[in-house]
Amino acid sequence: MKKAVLIPDSFKGTMSSAEICGIMKEKILARFPGCEVLSIPVADGGEGSVDAFLTALGGEKVWLEVANPYFEPMQSFYGLIDGGKTAVVEMASCAGLPLVEGRRDPSKTTTYGVGQLILAAAARGVKKIIVGLGGSSTTDGGCGAAAAIGVKFTDAEGKEFVPVGGNLHKIAGIDLSGRSELLKGVEVVTMCDIDNPMYGPTGAAYVFGPQKGADPEMVKFLDEGLIHLGEVIKRDLGRDLTLVPGGGAAGAMGVGMVAFFDSTLQMGIETVLDTVDFDRIIADADAIFTGEGKIDSQSLRGKVVIGVARRAKKQGKDVIAVVGGSELEMAGAYESGVKAIFTINRLPQDLSVSRFQSKENLAFVMDNILRMM
Amino acid sequence: MKKAVLIPDSFKGTMSSAEICGIMKEKILARFPGCEVLSIPVADGGEGSVDAFLTALGGEKVWLEVANPYFEPMQSFYGLIDGGKTAVVEMASCAGLPLVEGRRDPSKTTTYGVGQLILAAAARGVKKIIVGLGGSSTTDGGCGAAAAIGVKFTDAEGKEFVPVGGNLHKIAGIDLSGRSELLKGVEVVTMCDIDNPMYGPTGAAYVFGPQKGADPEMVKFLDEGLIHLGEVIKRDLGRDLTLVPGGGAAGAMGVGMVAFFDSTLQMGIETVLDTVDFDRIIADADAIFTGEGKIDSQSLRGKVVIGVARRAKKQGKDVIAVVGGSELEMAGAYESGVKAIFTINRLPQDLSVSRFQSKENLAFVMDNILRMM
Repeated sequence: MKKAVLIPDSFKGTMSSAEICGIMKEKILARFPGCEVLSIPVADGGEGSVDAFLTALGGEKVWLEVANPYFEPMQSFYGLIDGGKTAVVEMASCAGLPLVEGRRDPSKTTTYGVGQLILAAAARGVKKIIVGLGGSSTTDGGCGAAAAIGVKFTDAEGKEFVPVGGNLHKIAGIDLSGRSELLKGVEVVTMCDIDNPMYGPTGAAYVFGPQKGADPEMVKFLDEGLIHLGEVIKRDLGRDLTLVPGGGAAGAMGVGMVAFFDSTLQMGIETVLDTVDFDRIIADADAIFTGEGKIDSQSLRGKVVIGVARRAKKQGKDVIAVVGGSELEMAGAYESGVKAIFTINRLPQDLSVSRFQSKENLAFVMDNILRMM
Repeated sequence: MKKAVLIPDSFKGTMSSAEICGIMKEKILARFPGCEVLSIPVADGGEGSVDAFLTALGGEKVWLEVANPYFEPMQSFYGLIDGGKTAVVEMASCAGLPLVEGRRDPSKTTTYGVGQLILAAAARGVKKIIVGLGGSSTTDGGCGAAAAIGVKFTDAEGKEFVPVGGNLHKIAGIDLSGRSELLKGVEVVTMCDIDNPMYGPTGAAYVFGPQKGADPEMVKFLDEGLIHLGEVIKRDLGRDLTLVPGGGAAGAMGVGMVAFFDSTLQMGIETVLDTVDFDRIIADADAIFTGEGKIDSQSLRGKVVIGVARRAKKQGKDVIAVVGGSELEMAGAYESGVKAIFTINRLPQDLSVSRFQSKENLAFVMDNILRMM
């Protein structure tokens, strides 16, 4: 084996994608010294996405002061990759839930800092900005971020304000005309792995509000605010985004990215595959390893293993999946281009027990797969 | 793949060796139609050993009336393989613990029927008799079986009797001179996978007595009887067998097989490999699959996977092991000739949960291994 490409998802709760790449690489080099091993830890948009891209592609991490979820100054960052032509912003870096530990309140928190990061990256002259959603403390529909790039939100008295979750219902008008010129000609792509719409029973408030600190009353209130925002967007911007899949991601930032940043919403794995130029780097690869915590036939959409396999299949390349668990019936995965699936469960143990040996168990099965090759 | 050899141990408590062979074969034929698949379910000497040999080699199952553990008539059997030149007797078939359910008493039960089976096989003109130990209800040191072939046990008054566990201490003399002529020139090989000596803290009475129904007092009594038997064997037969590894197997039938049948004690897997002519049948095999419930480096002795691998390695043949669980450090196994080890644990579940999906899980991993080939 002369060249191997590693592109696993994280095993949620046990191993990060970068850790998995590290273990796989170590085992490959032990058995095939001198093998070129390309590690592409997969970012899903959430915490660690910038580092994942930088690990895979190299680049620069740019730190700057922006607003935290409570409009207080904090140091956050974006990543510059692709020779400075592309920036990666992860909303969790300045609007994430861990930043408001002890004072969670999705009616007050803002995504303003995310807009500042996007604007700073644009000012740097990038052609493309990848924005990762996930892990947010907010339910502001992305209005904070929009305000940071010059979108104007006015109340019934015509007074400009920066909406947060708790006063979305006060938005009387939205005006995009003041949006920063810096963003002109910059492609904005948003990584978003969930399908939830903006509001309603499967929307941002009802599904994700409680984990951000909203009680049932606040959930209802936030949901009503989002309904209102949807109506104003429809009226003032002429776009009905209320049913967009993923619109409800990250406190309805999904909708905000579409409405205020003209962004597309994309599965994380697709963004990664495009960004790392996957088709090119696998052209001369002898083996491709992917994986995820649990693989199943039903939810193939947005799954890393299937996404990777589909691309590899176009070039007739085999993909080996190493997973934490698998359903029995995986014909769909094989048809998509997965050559074989191996699970890391070295012993018949419950996850509550085996999780503490995940790394050793991954190393074990990886070594045995390589022994077969 | 044109020819595959399957030679797994059972996964204790979940799948028999024959069941494992069946699943492996089905998956091989699905992926490699027309492949010649040789199934060799491994017998360990216990219940099912005769059927295992018959499954692997074909032959005949001969039924006849012999004594059950309480000297009552019962129908039991032996197997004829190798064109009638070899017989296989499993002691469990007429001296097994399930036969005395509700009346377990290792001080009263006998191996007499086992001797009758051996004698019947010898009368059939076989050249070799394989006797499988294991699963016994007895602690008679094989004296019952010996009596059945003509060995004479006498008490202090010179009166002949058939010793059982409870009166071993009454044996005053042993005389082999009346042993049946039918056994002359017949090689007797005893399958015995445990190392326990005849008596003492790790002996037949103390370790296995309780599960046969002995209370602490009876255990001590049985142990004293075996000590006495060891002394008489030493005095009358001139052989000190008290420390023979495996002598304590099956109620000390291990010692009895050596003392009264001139048998050798052998690991089950070695017996199987010899009997099926393993070296010859793998000569043109493209793949060899083995397996066992749990593989570990420490207890390599007598283990099926290692035994199979060592033989295969001599011919430079790769062996793939499919197991229920594995230790992390398996260098010893790889050095012995195991190419790769795969576990069947499709999900991170405790054995108490996953055991009910063992067959499906084995089929899953087997299919994925084959996909790699």
